[in-house]
Amino acid sequence: MTARDFRADDAHVDQAAIQPLPASKKIYVQGSRPDLRVPMREISLTDTTLNGGVEANPPVTVYDTSGLYTDPDARIDIRKGLPELRAPWIDERGDTERLAQLTSAFGRSRLADASLDPLRFELVRTPRRARAGSNVTQMHYARQGIVTPEMEFVAIRENLRRREYLESLRASGPQGEKMAAFMTRQHPGESFGASIPAEITPEFVRDEIARGRAVIPANINHPEVEPMIIGRNFLVKINGNIGNSAVTSSINEEVDKMTWGIRWGADTIMDLSTGKHIHETREWIIRNSPVPIGTVPIYQALEKVNGKAEDLTWELFRDTLIEQAEQGVDYFTIHAGVRLAHVPLTANRMTGIVSRGGSIMAKWCLSHHQENFLYTRFDDICQIMKAYDVSFSLGDGLRPGSVWDANDEAQLAELKTLGELTQIAWKHDVQVMIEGPGHVPMQLIKENMDKQLEWCDEAPFYTLGPLTTDIAPGYDHITSAIGAAQIGWYGTAMLCYVTPKEHLGLPNKADVKEGIITYKLAAHAADLAKGHPGAQIRDNALSKARFEFRWEDQFNLGLDPDRAREFHDETLPKDSAKVAHFCSMCGPHFCSMKITQDVRDFAARQGIAEQDALRQGMETKAIEFKKGGGKLYDKV
Amino acid sequence: MTARDFRADDAHVDQAAIQPLPASKKIYVQGSRPDLRVPMREISLTDTTLNGGVEANPPVTVYDTSGLYTDPDARIDIRKGLPELRAPWIDERGDTERLAQLTSAFGRSRLADASLDPLRFELVRTPRRARAGSNVTQMHYARQGIVTPEMEFVAIRENLRRREYLESLRASGPQGEKMAAFMTRQHPGESFGASIPAEITPEFVRDEIARGRAVIPANINHPEVEPMIIGRNFLVKINGNIGNSAVTSSINEEVDKMTWGIRWGADTIMDLSTGKHIHETREWIIRNSPVPIGTVPIYQALEKVNGKAEDLTWELFRDTLIEQAEQGVDYFTIHAGVRLAHVPLTANRMTGIVSRGGSIMAKWCLSHHQENFLYTRFDDICQIMKAYDVSFSLGDGLRPGSVWDANDEAQLAELKTLGELTQIAWKHDVQVMIEGPGHVPMQLIKENMDKQLEWCDEAPFYTLGPLTTDIAPGYDHITSAIGAAQIGWYGTAMLCYVTPKEHLGLPNKADVKEGIITYKLAAHAADLAKGHPGAQIRDNALSKARFEFRWEDQFNLGLDPDRAREFHDETLPKDSAKVAHFCSMCGPHFCSMKITQDVRDFAARQGIAEQDALRQGMETKAIEFKKGGGKLYDKV
Repeated sequence: MTARDFRADDAHVDQAAIQPLPASKKIYVQGSRPDLRVPMREISLTDTTLNGGVEANPPVTVYDTSGLYTDPDARIDIRKGLPELRAPWIDERGDTERLAQLTSAFGRSRLADASLDPLRFELVRTPRRARAGSNVTQMHYARQGIVTPEMEFVAIRENLRRREYLESLRASGPQGEKMAAFMTRQHPGESFGASIPAEITPEFVRDEIARGRAVIPANINHPEVEPMIIGRNFLVKINGNIGNSAVTSSINEEVDKMTWGIRWGADTIMDLSTGKHIHETREWIIRNSPVPIGTVPIYQALEKVNGKAEDLTWELFRDTLIEQAEQGVDYFTIHAGVRLAHVPLTANRMTGIVSRGGSIMAKWCLSHHQENFLYTRFDDICQIMKAYDVSFSLGDGLRPGSVWDANDEAQLAELKTLGELTQIAWKHDVQVMIEGPGHVPMQLIKENMDKQLEWCDEAPFYTLGPLTTDIAPGYDHITSAIGAAQIGWYGTAMLCYVTPKEHLGLPNKADVKEGIITYKLAAHAADLAKGHPGAQIRDNALSKARFEFRWEDQFNLGLDPDRAREFHDETLPKDSAKVAHFCSMCGPHFCSMKITQDVRDFAARQGIAEQDALRQGMETKAIEFKKGGGKLYDKV
Repeated sequence: MTARDFRADDAHVDQAAIQPLPASKKIYVQGSRPDLRVPMREISLTDTTLNGGVEANPPVTVYDTSGLYTDPDARIDIRKGLPELRAPWIDERGDTERLAQLTSAFGRSRLADASLDPLRFELVRTPRRARAGSNVTQMHYARQGIVTPEMEFVAIRENLRRREYLESLRASGPQGEKMAAFMTRQHPGESFGASIPAEITPEFVRDEIARGRAVIPANINHPEVEPMIIGRNFLVKINGNIGNSAVTSSINEEVDKMTWGIRWGADTIMDLSTGKHIHETREWIIRNSPVPIGTVPIYQALEKVNGKAEDLTWELFRDTLIEQAEQGVDYFTIHAGVRLAHVPLTANRMTGIVSRGGSIMAKWCLSHHQENFLYTRFDDICQIMKAYDVSFSLGDGLRPGSVWDANDEAQLAELKTLGELTQIAWKHDVQVMIEGPGHVPMQLIKENMDKQLEWCDEAPFYTLGPLTTDIAPGYDHITSAIGAAQIGWYGTAMLCYVTPKEHLGLPNKADVKEGIITYKLAAHAADLAKGHPGAQIRDNALSKARFEFRWEDQFNLGLDPDRAREFHDETLPKDSAKVAHFCSMCGPHFCSMKITQDVRDFAARQGIAEQDALRQGMETKAIEFKKGGGKLYDKV
């Protein structure tokens, strides 16, 4: 089905995207005001039965990006869009005005085009813009010392009811007390400068945003968004890309990819559409998205000049920025670092310029032999961003397209420029993220993070992978997850996913899920390595379930309960197997975890004294051993 | 089908495993003697056409573990097994003797059991053993200063005809010269002590083996093996596990998994069978395997005492070691580090003891309240190992079963013991690898490598993953590939794969392939990061093909050409698309790589002078910028 065939009346949500996950309940944590309710997912667990005794396992609360789609009480109709959660908050600030009509000439022309009526989302309201002289960015408020509802929302969201969980864990019994101790004690290890408080306060959020170390992408024209924060002192986030192309896919398909992506954990979605009806597709996605939406406006601008990069003008681009800002796009990728002087630095690369936006601007610079207008007009762009609170995602148009080209002169020259531009944006109190590579062999990854922190003054880093080798097309979600987990550990705030189709084709829904889950686990591995105070909870709860053969709990605590259950059932289909104290790896005959329980019981029977004796024994033996010159047997 | 239903007469090779890979040719590099021919895979590429001119892309040679199965000239009959490649080399050494019958009582009883005839592999020869007083290990020869054919074989194998390739590349034209420069110049970066020569010589191999820093697992009763080397100054290797269990699968299925695993790149295969007919299954696997086979003898010993760990005895275990050594197993996992005193250290773990071998020995130690007999009899075990050249893979029976338990007292106490045992084995000139975890969060991975190098005196490290988070059952090939790539970079010599079924069930063939490819890319990412002199070649050849839209070459140079092609064709099925200068990501309308070529042509036209001018310009501007106090615009 093409966009043309699509009819708004037929628009429907994907049923698969609105089923609650197994044993999961949507909960809302109440904030300081009645309309501030923070969504989370609570996974209920079964009890543990150990020699006679029974001990409850309190439910585990996990981060929930799926919005109302997984709330059984919600009426979902994508033709109506989501409720305007943030509208009262924005109204109360009294610094915005409703516009009589769209500011963008292009936007108005699309609206006037009757042939588009059948596939248009029926938006009843007109857009907002900052009143003259007002600055409506979260950064501006933060610097005024104002804690917005958005800031309180993300503070509650990041805490995931950790304190309540640990209390109920301690109350559950001796096992629970032991677990609580495990979960609060952190492993040692290098955190590379991240310092995440045990409890995130709204004031901490405000401070990080004021400092520029975190962003809340939340356009005033996207009141449907459930606020989230991106910064290295918070949970590592992931982005999922969707978007049709000249070659494939329709509007409803793109909305489906969005609802499917957030079901599995996408924290933001980038709409990279390049085909027809970009404008209409975007409207459908934003109106139905509870997560921030990012775009690359130059893609649409290029469509407007029929793909002729040299025909791009500032006026046309400016109109495109305003068109999208008034639709509610939360962050823009702007390739302002692709300067005329940087372009020839790519001539001797293995793979030249692979960023679409980068190559568009490079072509423009060369054809006009002029400086990139995104650079010369950066100040004007900031004026637009702060009128709608659109965040910058400063694009790395010169990122390497192969591991060979990593960290080269062109890439680093651009990064340095992005650091200069960050300072300008911050002077306008405009929120900024910095985009990073790409393709980087492991030993060069840390240099990317270190230079970014230094040159961009700790603005959140947002990387694509990086892929750590180029020899596995079809598996680049994995070649890149290896790099993503590492750079996340080093301090990257958001990881842009890569699907198995990277370099080969457009991802379908299965690819989107594979990419999202792969990046969720990479981001979580990074949270663990950074010593995030709460990250260990889910791992430990799942490990305990695994150790106690609570199969259903193990499945339900995982990132993909459906696949875990399916894989288990391939070998042991019977339900009885799910309570059996063995698994198909060893069979009923013998099982290591069973034996461990015997060992544990034995140790318990022997008591601590025994253990100490044994320990003593070992130490003495070790000392003798050293005395004996490290020989175990004299005959040797 | 169960082993019982299996009939030797019906045994057949999996057709899917014997098709040559696309555009690939099996080649043999001749060594110093007629019977020393080292197999490799040569991937032929199409020409590059750039503005009129045509430039050839020389074929790329890659490492080939698939044995004769991918040689169209070979007659494959798994009922006959593979030819005895190494037989003359072993004969010439004159230090082994043919035994009149099997030494193992169990082996003889199986042979005498007529009910097994229908499913038995018909082996015509009797086993070899070292003559009295002889030591037939590669380490022993190496320490005598002898360069064996096995050592020369692996030296040639590791070089992959790199010199010849670079010569033909330089000869191919200016583009080729540029590429050759790329491939010989290395990126900077930490190699963590690995130092890999540009060309591996047989003498270098001998020296590394004598030093104990590398092993060639090659039992004198496995003459079919194509020698390979495991050490941190060589290409990182991967192991694939197969094995039926009490619950599932048959003999032919296991042979299929082996041929399937080596097709995709398994450097060694471990047979972890725990079900009935372990002995017969193993015979089929070894006789048909061109790669070293590893086992965990305690699994079979446990079967012999009906799963009652406490009934295990040294005599029974000894007979099992000899039974398997005379079948040709190349390395044994021996859990001699699970000492009585270490066991209670696991009592307060999150997940106790998860290693099967570890828990078996722990149970034995506790039931008898005696020291582990594998530890007390270690010297006797060495006597057996050197009589057949079976290499040790010293098992980490106390490895963590959850990221929480990583690097704890129990794990490290065992590692220290493995270091002591390494010294004993080396006194016998027995080759040693050390097994490592398991489940380890990223920030604790390096400590594992550092302590292993120090305590085990640089014996090759062989790790399982490690998994970097526990929250993704169904995706543990990925949670572990993240850890595997890192620890490989730090110096681990071989990575034991993890399949998507880990913790959930037994892998089928699809899982085996997914696990193998995932680990091949992780191992290669590690080779790149270590600065392996040849690792960049395949990445660069593939990146160049990608950049030039040589789709077929891109697929064929990848680890899984079938999947790459399939993914591409999902979106752009027509063959014409495979020569089109665009892909489905951007469509025919616009393509970044196309634009880059325009940029390159432009830069070329402008010439170097122009580039210098631009560069100059940038530098001047940068200086002004600094002078101007870092402000881009005065108005800001």
